[in-house]
Amino acid sequence: MSAELIQRIKELEGEVERLKSQLRVQDGAEADTAATARPGPGEHTHCEPNGGTNRKKGRKAGKERPFDFSAHPRRHVALRLAYLGWAYQGFAVQENTDNTVEARLFEALLKTRLIQDRQSSNYHRCGRTDKGVSAFSQVITIDLRSTQSCGGLGVTLPASVDASSETKAAGSELPYVKMLNRVLPQDIRMLDWAPVAEGFSARFDCQSRTYRYYFPRGSLDVAMMADAAKRYEGTHDFRNVCKMDVGNGVLQFQRTILSASVKPVQPQHMSSTDPHDIFIFEIKGLAFLYHQVRCMMAVLLLIGQKLEAPEIINQLLDVDRNPRKPQYSMAVDYPLVLYDCHFEGLSWKQEPEELNHALAALQQHWTQSAVRSHVLHGMMQGLEAMGGVSSKHCWLVEGTRQRNYRPLLERPCCESLQSRIEHFVKRGRLEREEGEDGGEMVHRGKRSRHAHNSPSPSITAHTPISTQSEDQKVEH
Amino acid sequence: MSAELIQRIKELEGEVERLKSQLRVQDGAEADTAATARPGPGEHTHCEPNGGTNRKKGRKAGKERPFDFSAHPRRHVALRLAYLGWAYQGFAVQENTDNTVEARLFEALLKTRLIQDRQSSNYHRCGRTDKGVSAFSQVITIDLRSTQSCGGLGVTLPASVDASSETKAAGSELPYVKMLNRVLPQDIRMLDWAPVAEGFSARFDCQSRTYRYYFPRGSLDVAMMADAAKRYEGTHDFRNVCKMDVGNGVLQFQRTILSASVKPVQPQHMSSTDPHDIFIFEIKGLAFLYHQVRCMMAVLLLIGQKLEAPEIINQLLDVDRNPRKPQYSMAVDYPLVLYDCHFEGLSWKQEPEELNHALAALQQHWTQSAVRSHVLHGMMQGLEAMGGVSSKHCWLVEGTRQRNYRPLLERPCCESLQSRIEHFVKRGRLEREEGEDGGEMVHRGKRSRHAHNSPSPSITAHTPISTQSEDQKVEH
Repeated sequence: MSAELIQRIKELEGEVERLKSQLRVQDGAEADTAATARPGPGEHTHCEPNGGTNRKKGRKAGKERPFDFSAHPRRHVALRLAYLGWAYQGFAVQENTDNTVEARLFEALLKTRLIQDRQSSNYHRCGRTDKGVSAFSQVITIDLRSTQSCGGLGVTLPASVDASSETKAAGSELPYVKMLNRVLPQDIRMLDWAPVAEGFSARFDCQSRTYRYYFPRGSLDVAMMADAAKRYEGTHDFRNVCKMDVGNGVLQFQRTILSASVKPVQPQHMSSTDPHDIFIFEIKGLAFLYHQVRCMMAVLLLIGQKLEAPEIINQLLDVDRNPRKPQYSMAVDYPLVLYDCHFEGLSWKQEPEELNHALAALQQHWTQSAVRSHVLHGMMQGLEAMGGVSSKHCWLVEGTRQRNYRPLLERPCCESLQSRIEHFVKRGRLEREEGEDGGEMVHRGKRSRHAHNSPSPSITAHTPISTQSEDQKVEH
Repeated sequence: MSAELIQRIKELEGEVERLKSQLRVQDGAEADTAATARPGPGEHTHCEPNGGTNRKKGRKAGKERPFDFSAHPRRHVALRLAYLGWAYQGFAVQENTDNTVEARLFEALLKTRLIQDRQSSNYHRCGRTDKGVSAFSQVITIDLRSTQSCGGLGVTLPASVDASSETKAAGSELPYVKMLNRVLPQDIRMLDWAPVAEGFSARFDCQSRTYRYYFPRGSLDVAMMADAAKRYEGTHDFRNVCKMDVGNGVLQFQRTILSASVKPVQPQHMSSTDPHDIFIFEIKGLAFLYHQVRCMMAVLLLIGQKLEAPEIINQLLDVDRNPRKPQYSMAVDYPLVLYDCHFEGLSWKQEPEELNHALAALQQHWTQSAVRSHVLHGMMQGLEAMGGVSSKHCWLVEGTRQRNYRPLLERPCCESLQSRIEHFVKRGRLEREEGEDGGEMVHRGKRSRHAHNSPSPSITAHTPISTQSEDQKVEH
């Protein structure tokens, strides 16, 4: 809701700028040469005066002295952040929009001069969340400016400095969390940071990722959903429960789900039958495929509506019997949260008051949201008292229930994996070659958009269980 | 939040139109002669194709045949409606904005040809709600087109028709609720309607009005607030607990509160201490002053924060001892709902499925809101688990708690009633004259903006308890 409104505001602001430019050109005045001016929507403005000027004009102010990064130590760190994804077009930077969490993040990193630029910052992210999806524990690793001239975990000294000659203690590290929170929008918050060894990567060193999907009971059979959820646990080929992304080099779909459960947010809701009770589908895995959680949830919702039996999950995971994915929509985005990214052995450092500030801000945001929910709930009760009858349609799905439900296994199917591979082989995005064991191997081709990146995973005709590395996009 | 975004969208859309016009003029093309084009924001579009064209262009399509209202019976009816006030600039039509509930209402009434125009429609409304304030039971009375050529309660036959000569039964009345809901925005819903006698007025014949104000426990002492709320009951002079509107002829501030209570939405919350529990301040009165409920709530919140004692209410209602209102802000708008407007002896008629549709729409809206609340709540719990400490500041109030609280009775005061009367007497908006008993009377003057309206209430030096009529603005 708000996300769409904010998007519209941005579009309109862009249009206003373009029209103004046109007018100036027409007037014969010098064309405005500003880079994309980007005034933030009301919710996002949280600029310090200095940084604010830069940000609003989108170009360097003439007065700035170039900052000499090479004179400072660098430090490889992990940063943990939380964000509400509802007003953004996803976490990852995109070509066609500026409205991403990463874009705001890098603005903040540049504004605070913690990095010189993205390309040289040694940046890795733990997960990519999609448009509308939030995160409580997104983790990134990056090289930041440091004060630690005496060295320390993850610190690289500038060429000019000799650590052994520094007798003066450097004092405490820069207050990264506080510095960034001062310039980030309110709905993106740094929580804490940890020093890490130089080779440590948020992407490759993550032990597990946990997602939560919140939903109301409505008229769902949540007990059946809880039984069904367990069937996702274990190592399976999830090609029928994700959006295949073969073009980007994702060629094998085996993933390990460590746990999958459906539970009420409040324990007493177990015995209750109130349609307003809220439940959480929580899943913990090593790594996830593109839209995997939302597809898993979509199937659970069909089961909860008794349109499918829990066994459908086993059938979808049986890719020998069901090699092609039936057509079904994934669940909506806004209830999904990347709740935890787990790393072993990190020493997370908090800054006093930062958590409290984040908590206070969340309290007010929650208050608005919860009060509105109750205003709406009060009206629902009023309508029921007037004789209105509650809909049996799934409350998470817009529109009305279809009259004739078509079972998943009777639906048209999406393209098979083999067919998609063919498609990209023809275009040179993937290449075939004979493997060592005589089987065929496929890997990213010369024309792949990622041809320059780290080695792509290969797939053979026998599809062994390969390491669930993070070349694959982790997206929902 | 959304209200401000939508407002910004409207401003930007207006600016885009103006710039485009300028460009066209500059191009030498004919200036665009359209009336104010008003594309609705995403949330509001719910136009039938025919009506939609008219509405978007803001001018009559050339092809319409003029509709002959005089050929149809008219019927005086009460219409009951519910609306979410968050996206509107209030209920009542305003000069400087199109974004009001009434504006949407009249568009719908005109589009469906249920009325010819507002001026001739004999329209009265029960209450005026302010920007951001919602209503579950707003009632209006109005003359609508009817099919009842045989007559009926509230029906006026057209001159050409003789009821006694009509042997054919007219059939059922027009489905007013369904017709209007088809063209109203989703956040404004007709609930039912009732035929009423010709002189019946939503404004003057309302027996009582009930408001609800929703709020979270946070760190408030809700038991103390409940004790305090009771002190509002009875008949009192509420000048210190409202925004005086002397310029509009509101000259006496005695009102009767039939009941005032603070209760949890769920009974089990009584024994709980969870800051997330939601409570309702509910008040029922004959009529209310401008912003009265929000001022009452503001004082309750101070009491709940233990910044004032419950006795402060008695002191504020003691206008002899405290003739001037201390300066304090009223409570925010979004938690307030005009929940019920009560009328005796009306036979409300529902239309099949309309309540169910409204309920289904509310369910989906509630789902979005409740799910977001729980996403936020989950993050708050995560922060607390990390060591974050909950703020003691009132969750309903933005910003941080002031360090030094200044008791109400020690604060600067607003202008007294006498002083305000003087002010308007000087400008001719109010006039003084000698009353029958030798006391002075004040009433609306020649230069009053409402000089042409129904007789204004007068006030004498002795301020007797007069009938709590609805000349006074009922606004919150």
